[in-house]
Formats: sequence, structure tokens, C-alpha cells
Amino acid sequence: MAGFSDPIIAAGVAGLPALYAAGVSPVDVTEAYLARIERLNPAIKAVVELDAAGARAEARASAQRWADGKPLSPIDGAPIAVKANIAVEGLAHSAGIKAYARNVAPADAACVARLRAAGAVILGALNMHEAALGATNDNVFLGRCENPHRPGFTPGGSSGGSAAAVAAGLCAAALGTDTMGSVRLPSSYCGVVGYKPALGAIATDGVTALSWTLDHVGVHARSAADAALVAQACGVGATTAPDERPLAVLDLDGLVQLEPAVAENFTSTLDHLARAGWRLEKLRIEDLDLGALRRAGLLISEVEGGVEHRRALALDPEGFTPELRSLLAWGARQTPAKLAEAYRLLTEVRRKIISATAPYSGLLTPTTPQQAFAFGGAIPTSQADLTALGNVLGAPAFALPSGEADRLPLSLQVIGMTDGATQALAARLFETLPSAAVPEAFR
Amino acid sequence: MAGFSDPIIAAGVAGLPALYAAGVSPVDVTEAYLARIERLNPAIKAVVELDAAGARAEARASAQRWADGKPLSPIDGAPIAVKANIAVEGLAHSAGIKAYARNVAPADAACVARLRAAGAVILGALNMHEAALGATNDNVFLGRCENPHRPGFTPGGSSGGSAAAVAAGLCAAALGTDTMGSVRLPSSYCGVVGYKPALGAIATDGVTALSWTLDHVGVHARSAADAALVAQACGVGATTAPDERPLAVLDLDGLVQLEPAVAENFTSTLDHLARAGWRLEKLRIEDLDLGALRRAGLLISEVEGGVEHRRALALDPEGFTPELRSLLAWGARQTPAKLAEAYRLLTEVRRKIISATAPYSGLLTPTTPQQAFAFGGAIPTSQADLTALGNVLGAPAFALPSGEADRLPLSLQVIGMTDGATQALAARLFETLPSAAVPEAFR
Repeated sequence: MAGFSDPIIAAGVAGLPALYAAGVSPVDVTEAYLARIERLNPAIKAVVELDAAGARAEARASAQRWADGKPLSPIDGAPIAVKANIAVEGLAHSAGIKAYARNVAPADAACVARLRAAGAVILGALNMHEAALGATNDNVFLGRCENPHRPGFTPGGSSGGSAAAVAAGLCAAALGTDTMGSVRLPSSYCGVVGYKPALGAIATDGVTALSWTLDHVGVHARSAADAALVAQACGVGATTAPDERPLAVLDLDGLVQLEPAVAENFTSTLDHLARAGWRLEKLRIEDLDLGALRRAGLLISEVEGGVEHRRALALDPEGFTPELRSLLAWGARQTPAKLAEAYRLLTEVRRKIISATAPYSGLLTPTTPQQAFAFGGAIPTSQADLTALGNVLGAPAFALPSGEADRLPLSLQVIGMTDGATQALAARLFETLPSAAVPEAFR
Repeated sequence: MAGFSDPIIAAGVAGLPALYAAGVSPVDVTEAYLARIERLNPAIKAVVELDAAGARAEARASAQRWADGKPLSPIDGAPIAVKANIAVEGLAHSAGIKAYARNVAPADAACVARLRAAGAVILGALNMHEAALGATNDNVFLGRCENPHRPGFTPGGSSGGSAAAVAAGLCAAALGTDTMGSVRLPSSYCGVVGYKPALGAIATDGVTALSWTLDHVGVHARSAADAALVAQACGVGATTAPDERPLAVLDLDGLVQLEPAVAENFTSTLDHLARAGWRLEKLRIEDLDLGALRRAGLLISEVEGGVEHRRALALDPEGFTPELRSLLAWGARQTPAKLAEAYRLLTEVRRKIISATAPYSGLLTPTTPQQAFAFGGAIPTSQADLTALGNVLGAPAFALPSGEADRLPLSLQVIGMTDGATQALAARLFETLPSAAVPEAFR
């Protein structure tokens, strides 16, 4: 598949040290990304706030460390941008909500501080769906973020800016957050790798919560190896030996309706893996109601999100869109019994799936039942039904590009047990699967 | 301390095989307990339904197995009674609620089935506080269960009948349930051992739920070894080598107010342990609000209990006391935001305590801040504040007798990490601590 013409951009994260060894400096790398953001971002509105001066200073410091032979980590010098609900000192910490437009972060979120401690260059803040509750990324306050693969199509959400920026080569990798799929869903729509580590593996301190029960911080990158390196810099465990047991393929019959292109790609992906020697076994999980699980997850997010934003909702209701206010108000109107049953369903599904998948190294599903949809069209209600399983489990999960149809990417999800083994599994799958081409306008 | 004069009763659970070897039969053992129930139960109303015929049949079968040299387990033949919220086939499964008076269990609860599979003799059902939500055991439907140590005093709750029956020698051991302390609290008041294994270690299938989030099945027995044997028969892991690290002693300053007799006993117990060579370290846990935790646990219990009893509340509201109806209705009136914050507090406290206690083999507290209180007197609001920590953690915890004052028992709580190591720790502590005397009327 066609890649980036600029070797600096093509290097992603893991390829940068080889360029440094060849005489390219981290300053060249950051300048290349800053130039691309200036040239290409207006068309997709993925980057919403840039810290060019800070990035240049960090790049110079990184260059000095590499020159001294003392890089802080393998990602020292890698230009990374972060979703606008993750605090970056001195930048607006808006979570995509107008009410927080002037909320300048007094300090870095824990994950950003870890990235800086690893030498990463923080480029700036990325677009997102308002409050991380939704998947169009058509943000009235930050602007409509476009899918780099096809104008007029959503990048997905809620971390749409993160996935779009990585797909368009505006940063080497990005941080996002994922409550029911918000890292993997836009990664699927934009043809990049999305990695949601296990619950709590990346600390959420300094991240505006949507749901403290389901929120995870995750990574968008252009390869599974890049995603693992960035996650490890954020505190996730190192890659371990891969688990050699068979992979389970979730039997989706009666669970969720796939779009024809997604169904076809999933089938051909499994065929391809089987031919490449992977051992795959179909797994039926009885009495699994993904619709009920989605409604439970949404209710929990709406209630917990309502608690998170309570003060701002009272002081500045107009700083929230009517759509978001309505979702949060709906949560507040439900009975405590209904909420208690939603939490119970999560626990029950978690136990059921952990038990069913115990003999396997991982669980395969399409990442999303649909490809990216057009702005203004119907929003598929089931879009996060397969990704939400990873949040309910609290288990590590990757979205991995698995081809294209109709000029839009397709994606395979793998849910594992431990972060280390899942990284190894994802890296092997990534090597086996076809990548999404870089969108022509961004090569 | 004075014990039971009858060697069969004095043998508890672990001592029975030695009696069998000396020619005593499991039939003699069951007859001894049935005779005591007939003679002594009317004064304390601990046993609310007896299955004498079933028990005798099981005792005969057990006698045959011992005669054949093929006992099913170390507890084969041990007479055990169970709290009335745990299903026993053919007995009323009332959970202490009048609305369920004619609810005859069609099958055994999972834990009872396991006990039978281990050869235990199931004697019958035990008194409890209505719906397991309360701690006086002054049950208008099943009768007022008295503390065997002092007439007019509550045995505690909600498993008051279980603790009273074990203290009075009406069964060799008993099952109870524990949502915020309902096994350990009455064990403390009645001078017996209470063991709440880790969350889920004993399956709750067939147990009327109060709170599916906090409910545990546990064991009341006359020694730590007896409690471990019965728990193991119910599916809990075997005793392992004890953890040799120091014990943490929770610094209670500002956390909870102890009655003078409890404070004095706790101090002298720690002195005694230190002299006996135990390594104890005071542990301060900052920002721990036991009152807030209690309110959160109660709210969750009231809401989840309301879901559990929803149908019966609608069909037969008069089958619930006004007090219970009022508690469940209060839960139903709260906002979902308040409930969500209650669940969050549980998670936060769990993380905080797990982190603070990581260097220790266990955590010591008094089991209860007060001794048993008189019927009609004020009910101490903080009575479950120290036991509730074990439910929030989901960690194994024992209540161990630690002496007496004013003719009422005192008790030490130890919270551990794994069931196996906590059993070992509790057994060593139990040997070191003074037992409560058997109440004079029951010797």
C-alpha cells in the first residue's frame, strides 16, 4: 500500500532512531511535522491547539541527548499530540466543551508528564467529540474534524482528531481516551492502529473523565510496535512472549449486524490468517446482549459524566450543546435501580466473557460493524458494540487495519488478557494484515 | 475459659474425626445437637426451622461412610445450620422476610449443595435480621434472637441466629452472609469465629441477595480451623503457608470512636501479641472517611436490595416491615448521580487500602467499635464501620474472639489478602488469643 513519501513521516515512532543514526536530528523531525500541520491541518481540523515553541525547545533538548548518546527512551524525540481532554500544561484543557474553553491546564496530565519524561515532543491538542460522548467529531466549538481518507466522512469518535492526525501524518503518534471504543473506533475509521491498554494501565489523572468506571487512556499510531512503545512510555508493561494458544473468533450471529463490506473483510481476514498458519476457533458466547450492554455503558457514562460536569452545567449551561445537555439530563432522570442494574450487567458480562475466553490467547472481532459514515447521515447505533467489550472487560485491545473498501479503511479488533502478551499478538497480526494506504492528499 | 461439658459439642468440627476413631458415631453427634436444640433453642430462638428427619438420614449415611473408611471430606458428619436467606431444599427460604414465608426452596443453594457433597449434616435454618439489612436480629416474623451470653442483649446481625447457634452449641458451625459485616459483627457479639472469605470465593447462587456488589457468604465456627474447614468444603482455597511479613494495625485515631472496653481490649490484645513475638506496625491511612464509606455501602445495599425485592414489594408490601420498606424506598428516591458516587467511593477506598497494606501480611482492627447492645437501646451507627472495609476490599477477613468484658465478648478482626494465607494467619492468632467462655446456661 502507498505510504508517506517523506521518510521522516514514514518512520513513525519506532523508525526514528535509525534516522537519527543516519544524521537526521529530532529538530528536523519536529520541523517536518510542524510544516505538515501548517499545510495539511486546515483541510481536516485534527489539531486544535499547537505549541510550536514548546515542541521546538523539546526537540532541541532531544537532539542534544541523542548527540550525547543519552536518549531518555526509545521514543525520545518522537512528536506526539494529545486529545483535548488530556491536560497539557499551558494549553486549553477543554474536553471539546465550550464551557471549558478558557480552562488552561496548570500542569500536565500524568500520561503527558510520563511522555515528556521519556523525551517525547508534545506538539499540541487534538480535536474530539464534545465531552468524549459521541462519535462524529463534528464539534461546533473546535470545528468539524474530517476523515483524511474521504472528505465529508467522519473520522469517528470520540478521539477522532487523534486518529485523523495520525492517519494524515500530522504527528508520529497520539493519545486518546476510550470509554466504549473512543480510541479504536476512530482508528478503525481512519486506518490506523488503536491500542487501549488494560484498565488503569495508563493513569487517568489529569484527564477529564467521561466515566470513571469505563475510561481508559490509549494510543493511536501507524504500527502496533509504535503504539506499544508509546504506551510503554506512559507506564504500560513491556511486550512479553506471545501466547501461543489459539485465537477465538467471536461468533457474531445474532449478536450484531455487520455492513456487507465489513462482513466480507472480516471473513477474508480470517481466511488470510488461517492460511498464514494462525489457529482460529469460532467461539459462541450464549446470552450476550450487546444492545443491553451498550445501553448500560451509555447510562453509566451519562450519569458519571453528569457528575464530572455538574459544576459547569450549573454555572454555564450554554457552554454545552443542547445534545450533550440532553444526554446528561437523561442520565440524571433515571432511577438508581436502573443504574445499579447497569453496573451489574457490566460485572455479569465481564465474568461471562473472561470465563468463555480463558482457553484462548485473544478474541477477534471486526473493530466496528460499519465503516466511517458521512456527516449528516444516520449515526449507526451499534458502532461501539464490539469495542465496548474491551472496556467492560478492562482488558487490553487493539484495532488493527485490515484493508479498505470504497476508499474507507477496515479494521480487525483483538482483545487479549495482559498488555505484554497482547502487544506481541498485535505486532504479529499487524505484520500479517494489509495496511490501509495513506490517503492520497497526505502522502 | 470454660468450655462445653459434652465432648461431642466441645469437638466442634475439626475434633469430630478423633471421636469417630474412638467409637462415637456421626449419628450420636447429630442426636446430641438435636437434643440441645430442643432443650436450649427456645431461650434464644436461633434455629427457626429444623429438618430433624433429613439430618438423621444424613447422619446415618455419614456413619456408614466413616465405618467403610470412606468419608467424603474432613467435615463428613459435621452438623451445620444455615442462615434463612440461603436456600435449603424443602425449607422456607424467607430471608427473614414475612413476604417470603411460604417460599419453600426447590433446591439447595450452591454452598449448601457443596456442604452436602462433603458429607455435612444440614440441621436447618437460622434466624436473621429481616432481609439481612440490620443488626439487632429482633425479627418480628421469626422471633427475637437473643445473645446466648446475656439475655436481653442482641446477638448482632444480620446473621445473628448463625452466631448465636454456634455460641450456644446448637450446631458445629453455621453459614451466614456478610454485606457490610453481617458474619463478623454477630460473631464478635457472640464470642465465636466469623470468617468472610474473599468476594466470590463461596458462590452466592441460591442466596437471597441484599447487595450483589457487597454480598459474601461466610462461616461461623468455634475455632479458626473449624471455619477454614467448612469454608473449604464450600469451595474456598486450602490453607497455605502463613505470610511472615509484619501485621499492620490500623491507626483508628479520627476514624472511629471505640467504646472504652473495646479500646482497652484492643490495646491489651496488641500488647499480648507483641509479647508473643508478633511483629505489629501502626498504619495510618490518610483521607479515609468510614462514615462516608458506610453511607455509600448502605445506599448501594438499599438500591440493590430494592431491585432484589421489587416484585414482592409490589405484590405484598405488608410482608415487609415499615422499617425495611422505608430503607428500600429511601434508596429508590436518591439520584443516580449519588449512587454512582457511592460506587466510585468504594473503588477509591479499595485502591487506597490495597496500596497502603501491600507491605503487610494483614490488617488488624477491633471487629466492632462496641460490644453487643441491649434490645431497645440505641443502635450504634458505627457498628459495621470496621467490618465494611473487608467487603469493600473483597478481601478475606476473620473475626476472632479476644476476651470478654461485662459478661459480653470482644473480638479482633484480621483482614488478609488471599484466603489460604489468611486462614493460616487467623489460626495462629486464634491460638494466641483468649477465647470467650461458653455462656454458663449453655455449657
